[in-house]
Amino acid sequence: MAPLELAALGVAEARERIGRGTLSPVALVEACLERIGALDATVQAWVHVDAKGALAAARLAEHAAVRGPLHGIPVAVKDIFDVAGLPTTAGAPPFAHRRPDEDAASVALLRAAGAIVLGKTHTTQFAYRDPAPTRNPWNLAHTPGGSSSGSAAAVAARMVPLALGSQTVGSVLRPAAYCGVVGFKPTHGLVPTAGVIPLAWSLDHVGVFTREVADAAAAFAVLARRSVAAEPCGPPRLALAPELLRRASREVAAHVQATADAFARAGATITEVKLPGSFDGIHAVGQTVLGSEAAASHEPRFAKHADQYGPEIRRLVEAGLTISAVTYLGANRARLAFREEVLELLAAHDGLLSPTAPAPAPEGLASTGDASLCAPWSFAGVPAISLPSGLAPSGLPLAIQLVQAAGASARLLSVAAWCERQLAFTRSPGL
Amino acid sequence: MAPLELAALGVAEARERIGRGTLSPVALVEACLERIGALDATVQAWVHVDAKGALAAARLAEHAAVRGPLHGIPVAVKDIFDVAGLPTTAGAPPFAHRRPDEDAASVALLRAAGAIVLGKTHTTQFAYRDPAPTRNPWNLAHTPGGSSSGSAAAVAARMVPLALGSQTVGSVLRPAAYCGVVGFKPTHGLVPTAGVIPLAWSLDHVGVFTREVADAAAAFAVLARRSVAAEPCGPPRLALAPELLRRASREVAAHVQATADAFARAGATITEVKLPGSFDGIHAVGQTVLGSEAAASHEPRFAKHADQYGPEIRRLVEAGLTISAVTYLGANRARLAFREEVLELLAAHDGLLSPTAPAPAPEGLASTGDASLCAPWSFAGVPAISLPSGLAPSGLPLAIQLVQAAGASARLLSVAAWCERQLAFTRSPGL
Repeated sequence: MAPLELAALGVAEARERIGRGTLSPVALVEACLERIGALDATVQAWVHVDAKGALAAARLAEHAAVRGPLHGIPVAVKDIFDVAGLPTTAGAPPFAHRRPDEDAASVALLRAAGAIVLGKTHTTQFAYRDPAPTRNPWNLAHTPGGSSSGSAAAVAARMVPLALGSQTVGSVLRPAAYCGVVGFKPTHGLVPTAGVIPLAWSLDHVGVFTREVADAAAAFAVLARRSVAAEPCGPPRLALAPELLRRASREVAAHVQATADAFARAGATITEVKLPGSFDGIHAVGQTVLGSEAAASHEPRFAKHADQYGPEIRRLVEAGLTISAVTYLGANRARLAFREEVLELLAAHDGLLSPTAPAPAPEGLASTGDASLCAPWSFAGVPAISLPSGLAPSGLPLAIQLVQAAGASARLLSVAAWCERQLAFTRSPGL
Repeated sequence: MAPLELAALGVAEARERIGRGTLSPVALVEACLERIGALDATVQAWVHVDAKGALAAARLAEHAAVRGPLHGIPVAVKDIFDVAGLPTTAGAPPFAHRRPDEDAASVALLRAAGAIVLGKTHTTQFAYRDPAPTRNPWNLAHTPGGSSSGSAAAVAARMVPLALGSQTVGSVLRPAAYCGVVGFKPTHGLVPTAGVIPLAWSLDHVGVFTREVADAAAAFAVLARRSVAAEPCGPPRLALAPELLRRASREVAAHVQATADAFARAGATITEVKLPGSFDGIHAVGQTVLGSEAAASHEPRFAKHADQYGPEIRRLVEAGLTISAVTYLGANRARLAFREEVLELLAAHDGLLSPTAPAPAPEGLASTGDASLCAPWSFAGVPAISLPSGLAPSGLPLAIQLVQAAGASARLLSVAAWCERQLAFTRSPGL
């Protein structure tokens, strides 16, 4: 098998070949490293590639007696997660550089399951909106989205089959949509955030990037320490909210409507729903919680280094410092009231179908795009997944988002697997 | 049996007699009402006595087929808890008067177990520090403590064997100590606070007043929906922190030390411990959380009625309105860090023995006394109980406090039952 074909294997396929003895972890790691070596000067997904460490781990894996569910699988780690022995820069190298002795809890779980850390991927500064240098593998003139820019681009460019990311507003699903890969965040709190630099702890979720739903399910099973049947469910009952389509471009709204129609032809039930009244205020409410908590965690560092903060995170922290406790507490209560209403709505369906982003990846690297269609589900803490669902005439990926009630992360993956089968998206960027 | 003897029965004793058919719920309610009628013009424990409703419930109880663990037991309810059909004034009748249709969750649990609501007891305004009119049954010139002033006094004066109270800082254990009764608050969140007017929801605990530990255990079993063995444990391993004794008057410190010595002679192990470093800052930290959350919940009402607020709660809300979100979040994190350190300390012992209050009930009704020795355990959310442990030369009750780790509420009751047996406190106020 050619190195490019090896690097393009998904988690489940690679794991199966390693299990059968037809693929060696060293060959897989070497293929990924070769792909990174060939492309990363262009894509700039990686801030630090640990070739030596990854190869050493792969050599050990060849002879390992115990073989976990991710045995020999290379993984990329967003650079706000600690990896023992590698620097954590959070996209802010002048003043946020540390070399931890311990893995973040999620990294430790992946490693304990046999995964091999290839290195750290670029993040926007402190996982907010000041862009990373990463480019979109489908069109280098476009943003890959953020904040998990490098993780999304690395998986899209077939440099690695699995990557860790985080989502506080739209930082997993939006870059997944822009880069034509699967992006999944389970229920808030299900995957531990210990060892991840916080942006806003009430909202920070650990998530994953893969190229297939089954691979996201395999990673989720390890990260949430539960057994997950990644089998597609039968034709699901999906909710569709016209309000959400109206927030997308005409092109994206038509695409999502056509996708819903195709799902209906395949047996799914599509029900039009109205979002709860609390939806209208949720952006302002979430931004207040985000700003307050970001200011609280950044305050000591910001006091010393404000001038080195990027303009977006600086504005967020400065605004957060002016918010009163009463305003914060009121916003957090409104957020939890929205969550309650959303849970009730979602409980009646197998998933809410929505665009992941209002449009495909915008041109330029100055902005990481529009997170507004991901934000409500982050603020509610409910599980959400983005699936690549087609290509726009521009050649950039289109995507759908599926949202479920808290506690239904595994069920959401089964619904997503059914949708993925209908979509049959098999394109990859022409790099 | 004379009405006074009936009214003085504990929960367990009354329940047993009712079960055997030697005591009728109507006779018990009548005895309590007679006692209230004779004394309450003096003590002022009750804001509203529902004689008609209680007698009707007692008559039904005579013939009830289903008999819960509190069948026929009269109970007093602090006037920040909703009782269906009775007004809730929160000690602020000019502007906080409502007549709810539903019981607070804790009241509903007690009623479902067969308890009979006798009425509502005086609270300080909004359960903070502006005094209620209630007097200490041991000496009418002294405060009964607060904020659950009426509940503590009613149980002490043998008007009722069981009362609901709430503790945000020291509002169950302190009045229990001042009034010579048992006051118990389980782990934060274990008993639902729905239907209780909040003071600060991160800190608000539902608690109970009784005259015996076994009675507190019986109420706790109902309120936390679990089976609780109220049996005394063997001689416990108790921790004693000299720092806490130094915060008490010489008289109280000597009393608690002598009590510890007596426990040691009875087989207990007494170990001197040092409190964690985070203890020093916990009062400021807790006050910030308290002020912020009180301001958040009072803001709409305060905006209209600030001039009718008592001076203490007004100062609390006004200060809370000026706290920043960052300060609040920092305080709440410091509080949780203290909780972590406290849990580690407490896990190594069967209980921390401490004075409940620095001195017996102060003279006068202008202040509800000093909550500083209760506050840390409220801020940590861990279970705590106060037991009457003697009488000062002034004739006022002395008390000890026992504190346990979160999750150990039932175990704390067993330890308290052992201590209660050693203390053999049988005095009652001479009313």
